[in-house]
Amino acid sequence: MLNFELYNPTNLIFGKGQMEKLSSLVPAGSKILLAYGGGSIFKNGIYDQVMTNLKGFEIVEFGGIEPNPHYETLMKAVEIIRAEKIDFILAVGGGSVIDGVKFISAAVHFEGNPMDILQKRLLIKENALPFGTVLTLPATGSEMNSGSVVTIKATEEKLAFGGSAMFPKFSICDPTVIVSLPKRQIQNGVVDAYTHVLEQYLTYPHNALLQDRFAEGILQTLVEVGPEVVENPADYTLASNFMWCCTMALNGLIQKGVPSDWATHMIGHELTALYGIDHARTLAIIGPNLYRVMFETKKGKLAQYGKRIFNLEGTEDEIAEKAIEATVAFFHKMGMQTKLSDYTEGYENTASFIVNRFDDRGWKGLGENQLVTLEKVKDIVEMSY
Amino acid sequence: MLNFELYNPTNLIFGKGQMEKLSSLVPAGSKILLAYGGGSIFKNGIYDQVMTNLKGFEIVEFGGIEPNPHYETLMKAVEIIRAEKIDFILAVGGGSVIDGVKFISAAVHFEGNPMDILQKRLLIKENALPFGTVLTLPATGSEMNSGSVVTIKATEEKLAFGGSAMFPKFSICDPTVIVSLPKRQIQNGVVDAYTHVLEQYLTYPHNALLQDRFAEGILQTLVEVGPEVVENPADYTLASNFMWCCTMALNGLIQKGVPSDWATHMIGHELTALYGIDHARTLAIIGPNLYRVMFETKKGKLAQYGKRIFNLEGTEDEIAEKAIEATVAFFHKMGMQTKLSDYTEGYENTASFIVNRFDDRGWKGLGENQLVTLEKVKDIVEMSY
Repeated sequence: MLNFELYNPTNLIFGKGQMEKLSSLVPAGSKILLAYGGGSIFKNGIYDQVMTNLKGFEIVEFGGIEPNPHYETLMKAVEIIRAEKIDFILAVGGGSVIDGVKFISAAVHFEGNPMDILQKRLLIKENALPFGTVLTLPATGSEMNSGSVVTIKATEEKLAFGGSAMFPKFSICDPTVIVSLPKRQIQNGVVDAYTHVLEQYLTYPHNALLQDRFAEGILQTLVEVGPEVVENPADYTLASNFMWCCTMALNGLIQKGVPSDWATHMIGHELTALYGIDHARTLAIIGPNLYRVMFETKKGKLAQYGKRIFNLEGTEDEIAEKAIEATVAFFHKMGMQTKLSDYTEGYENTASFIVNRFDDRGWKGLGENQLVTLEKVKDIVEMSY
Repeated sequence: MLNFELYNPTNLIFGKGQMEKLSSLVPAGSKILLAYGGGSIFKNGIYDQVMTNLKGFEIVEFGGIEPNPHYETLMKAVEIIRAEKIDFILAVGGGSVIDGVKFISAAVHFEGNPMDILQKRLLIKENALPFGTVLTLPATGSEMNSGSVVTIKATEEKLAFGGSAMFPKFSICDPTVIVSLPKRQIQNGVVDAYTHVLEQYLTYPHNALLQDRFAEGILQTLVEVGPEVVENPADYTLASNFMWCCTMALNGLIQKGVPSDWATHMIGHELTALYGIDHARTLAIIGPNLYRVMFETKKGKLAQYGKRIFNLEGTEDEIAEKAIEATVAFFHKMGMQTKLSDYTEGYENTASFIVNRFDDRGWKGLGENQLVTLEKVKDIVEMSY
């Protein structure tokens, strides 16, 4: 087991009807920026619930945070906060709104060019504007972690940053919100959370026995509830376990003491930046091919995964191979298409484009042991066409 | 899944050699009460490590916190803190020292009679003196939770209390400390953690699928590493997984959204108060008999446990029965004796004594559904003779 530090001060408030606690969670007397996305909160009643529970607070609204939130959009919120002397942000939305609010929170008091937070991947440990969240779309775990991904539209870069000041003060997670989600977003949420676990689990066999069990517990639960929750989002057992899996997949816990990969995400982010493909769907395209290309280094863990999650039998190599196919089959069951050509035309130069971009950034090797070299990235992306 | 709030701000620092972070964790300029137990930290080198890493801090020592820490002892520390104007406490020890320090922390600024904290089970949400811990004995999870159990010697009562101000600011958990522990204490640690999980898991079938998987993950890991770690405490894989299981068994996570029992602990505490039997061993005495007496309400979950942890087969009733026997066998493998008569003579009136004491406290029924009535408590204790 690797050495680790576990610190997660987010107050997570989970369950039906928890919105009524909102007014006691926001610091008394705060002037609030209410940040949201494309306006679904007006249709599903969440906007009204929030406003009812924030009576008496002064509120400035900031809507229109897009999926894969844009630096350019978020900087407008930063200006408003500075001008209006706002002292608390409430993010009402999914991972994109929450990630966007993390950037806003970091940028408000940042001295220098806030673009450096992204391009230099700065660690934000202090001077952040406090914020809370109301989660409307389970997927990214952003409601209980200190990471964020923001896209710079001008340069078509999708970049990650974070730091201990980026934990939400609180997050309200009510599983009943998923009833109003489009099927596509529920499918995305399941595959996103599933891949988050795989990034932290499908590396090489190591001695963090308990962490493996926890990771497998999330995978097993997602396999059990994922396909069903898409069809029956009003079923509270399905909805609550789905939502809880998403949070636990990326709130930092299963990552403690273990190696992690994240190469699927690094490559997938480029597909979103280039073609606007949903984040989760890029993971379903890239992940299985990454496991194929990195088979020799990953087969030990692939076999453990195949045995424990899919009850596969055979030699280590056989189980490992079947485990990749079982993963693809699960993604298909979750409504994912798993080839780049299913989503876009004109993809022929994607591999070399991504390799060049990684090269420009000085990236030599990705993954748990930096063994996903740029050559391997090329193979993985070409295999994904 | 039941509604829940998850809030745990303890900064947990886990691994080999983490003690060197100590000086950066204690607030600069603090005057520290260094609290410890019977003096084992002088033999195993931890005292020296702590002092080396706290050079420059003003330190007042308070040793002699006993197992099942006494109110009477802890109040002496409270007097010292008040007289010496100490502003931080460092607990160096196992669950008893940490639990004791939680009480000290709560009592220093408490207005009124501090005994009320225990006897009225007050929730401590503020005005606590900040404290950190260096864990020397994995077992109770106290290093990452906000609960504590303290014994009032004068009345022979062992009483629990807690509250959100009772989380340690930090806990340093270095698995190599277990090398110097007596076998008996490692055995106790494994059984204590295992029973902590059972208290939160062996209730009735419910819909918190992921929480069950996490609980089972801890149980499986303890079954795998428990017997071995007693023999090979220097094996880092065994030591680190054992220690991490103990923390995760009772840091609040697996309890969120599920019913919990705790009747085994309530009864077990009385055996410790009466006969001084090690806490974990009281759990090994009482637990299996509680499952036998409460078989009808617990058999659904017992069967799930039997299938998933011990790969048992048969009808639900058969698996449930065998699961109890497998638990007893595991406790025996962990060096536990599982009858009261193995530990003491003159036990014949224990059941009625405990029942009378519970009755005096107004306790009518314990357990997840308050179905462990005083009659059932009597049966359980008598079955344990």
